[in-house]
Amino acid sequence: MTGDSLAVGQRSLGDPEVRYPLWPPALGGDPATSTEDVAYPVEVDYDYGRVPADLFGRDAPGRVDRWAALLPPLTTPGLGEGGTPLVEVEDAVFVKDESRNPTWSHKDRLNRCTVSAAVGVGARGVVVASSGNHGASAAAYSARAGLPCVVLTSAAVPPAVASFLAAYGAVVLPVPVEARWGLTRRIVEEYGFHPVSNLGVTHTGHPFGPEGYKTVAYEIHADLGVPEAVFVPTGYGELLFGVWKGFAELRRLGVTTEVPRLFSCEPAAGGPLHRAVSRGLPATWIEPGDTDAYSIGCPVNGYRGVHALRESRGEPLLVTDEEMRRAQTALAGRGLWAELSSAAAYAGYRQVRDSGRSFDGPVVCVSTSSGFKDIAVAAHRPQPVDPAWPEVQAHLAKAGITP
Amino acid sequence: MTGDSLAVGQRSLGDPEVRYPLWPPALGGDPATSTEDVAYPVEVDYDYGRVPADLFGRDAPGRVDRWAALLPPLTTPGLGEGGTPLVEVEDAVFVKDESRNPTWSHKDRLNRCTVSAAVGVGARGVVVASSGNHGASAAAYSARAGLPCVVLTSAAVPPAVASFLAAYGAVVLPVPVEARWGLTRRIVEEYGFHPVSNLGVTHTGHPFGPEGYKTVAYEIHADLGVPEAVFVPTGYGELLFGVWKGFAELRRLGVTTEVPRLFSCEPAAGGPLHRAVSRGLPATWIEPGDTDAYSIGCPVNGYRGVHALRESRGEPLLVTDEEMRRAQTALAGRGLWAELSSAAAYAGYRQVRDSGRSFDGPVVCVSTSSGFKDIAVAAHRPQPVDPAWPEVQAHLAKAGITP
Repeated sequence: MTGDSLAVGQRSLGDPEVRYPLWPPALGGDPATSTEDVAYPVEVDYDYGRVPADLFGRDAPGRVDRWAALLPPLTTPGLGEGGTPLVEVEDAVFVKDESRNPTWSHKDRLNRCTVSAAVGVGARGVVVASSGNHGASAAAYSARAGLPCVVLTSAAVPPAVASFLAAYGAVVLPVPVEARWGLTRRIVEEYGFHPVSNLGVTHTGHPFGPEGYKTVAYEIHADLGVPEAVFVPTGYGELLFGVWKGFAELRRLGVTTEVPRLFSCEPAAGGPLHRAVSRGLPATWIEPGDTDAYSIGCPVNGYRGVHALRESRGEPLLVTDEEMRRAQTALAGRGLWAELSSAAAYAGYRQVRDSGRSFDGPVVCVSTSSGFKDIAVAAHRPQPVDPAWPEVQAHLAKAGITP
Repeated sequence: MTGDSLAVGQRSLGDPEVRYPLWPPALGGDPATSTEDVAYPVEVDYDYGRVPADLFGRDAPGRVDRWAALLPPLTTPGLGEGGTPLVEVEDAVFVKDESRNPTWSHKDRLNRCTVSAAVGVGARGVVVASSGNHGASAAAYSARAGLPCVVLTSAAVPPAVASFLAAYGAVVLPVPVEARWGLTRRIVEEYGFHPVSNLGVTHTGHPFGPEGYKTVAYEIHADLGVPEAVFVPTGYGELLFGVWKGFAELRRLGVTTEVPRLFSCEPAAGGPLHRAVSRGLPATWIEPGDTDAYSIGCPVNGYRGVHALRESRGEPLLVTDEEMRRAQTALAGRGLWAELSSAAAYAGYRQVRDSGRSFDGPVVCVSTSSGFKDIAVAAHRPQPVDPAWPEVQAHLAKAGITP
């Protein structure tokens, strides 16, 4: 299976001339270009000249395995990740519904790659710091690969998500947020575990992970061609980068001639990428305010996001919780129940549309995960209703339903 | 879109010579053959001679829309339902993971068809009696079709599922179980709503709904050919019937020569289909005991299940909550978090395997839904862990993880 990969090495995003061998994954980013203030991530490089000519035919796209040539070596069987649908929610506005993945979020595309890396280096286990989707997904792929997994999480995790994190047999340790990175490093060093979350000063993440997100772009292209714009819920910017890189590869390979404009959609309560771009910096730290969009509330951006916005002539957007809530309700009214954080993309699109700008071609909003992961889920119990007919009629009338 | 359907009428399962026109759907079953004790459902009949020759090529199967020719008219756009993966969990044992659907259960295949029927008859809205997946799915498809939806549910619905039922903007009324059917009928009669749950004496369900489940069989065939056996979580038997009918159609059309043996997997705390088959009856009522598999704990079977088991030379199985729990844990250990009810199929397979029987060919267990829908979800909060290194080490040691 790994023989399919055309990956040949790692390359710094800080300076593309700085290269490393493919193994081991450069977990802390590129030491050659990084400083005390910013860590530059590395990305995976491929032998693009050997990509099979029929890889990007516009037939049914299949799942992540189909694109093994342009992914890091997939050393371990997957769970049928990828192959998610585009659902049209307005005329020429499509939602890429990533809640159809094995653990019901986009993170499965990333963890197919990161856990493959853990197997590839012969790790004794996997360790991840996460409050939600990433942790559960890493736990699932570790289980699939037969590796133990330690999830360093927060005691403030939403109730349904607590069950989710524990479901796959991982050791789940709720610890204070500031203790997570130190513990991650120690479990790596003393137990020989492989980390699949960040180790760098600013965010670098796992170098193989964002490669998995390229498949979102490949699938959009297979179903729709190149859209005019793609709106992406943005925390550390790994998904944003992966979507950009996927489209950039299609152009590089001569399959397409354009890349779509990318719009990063961060919670207005924070928004380090927005600030970094506004100030022309590679990365900034911010003091995040309150937001219920816990999956994308980050104190620092990763350089990948800056890179993706610049190269796609994209824009950073900030969306309020209220805008996300309205977008979430609008999506549910079209039959899609997205996590609040996931509705950030559609909220960003609506913000741009309502400002009077329009798009000449189709637009895609990536919805990363399911409404089941939200903070408010399971917080209330339904109140019984008197089944007497006049009572029921009163309830229907209140909802505007009359005989 | 509806022009693709080759549906030509309805036919009684009580007596195949009894036929009805395609419209309106025979919601209470077939009055001609039903008695005070048992209501026989009807099924949809097609002009099989006109099925396109290339419909069942073994390429990537696509989603439910691909099979529109052999479905009732799809009058309303879907949500990208179907096209779920087979995940191999043991050598030649596959899980058909239906949690990858729009509302994360198999019910979306059914409600694509039932809500299309509501639109087809010009209904003013949709009404459904359900404690979980069926209700939320009906709400989502109603929202998609622009129809109001009333969900008659129970106040005992699991906490995360309560949020799920309310998410799509339906009017959710928690009422006593015994009031549900009367209220359904009244909302149908006085408000002109279309019912997508049962109205019959015993279970007949919506005649168009189980047709959607045939696509599970078409997809299994496209990915794997005809398996030796298919294990199916069984409540009223609609999924069981749909899977059987899909394979039976493949044989009828000359695409295959065999149908797999079907195994119905009911909670041991109840099991009306098991009892009906054992006694040679078309339907029986039972007094259900306690089970956490709330999605498949039914007081009565539908005749469809009896029909499917007989025609596939299948068998009814009973699985205990403990067997389902062990199966659920085993699946999570392979990376799949299934609802307890959904693990019934794999529990049934393990029961048969552990009894010493073996299968000559591949086996498929249908996993109907996601672990997020379980009763135990969100019932506990994670306990904070002291981040001091010796404490963390002690937690790891307890899980068998040593340096």
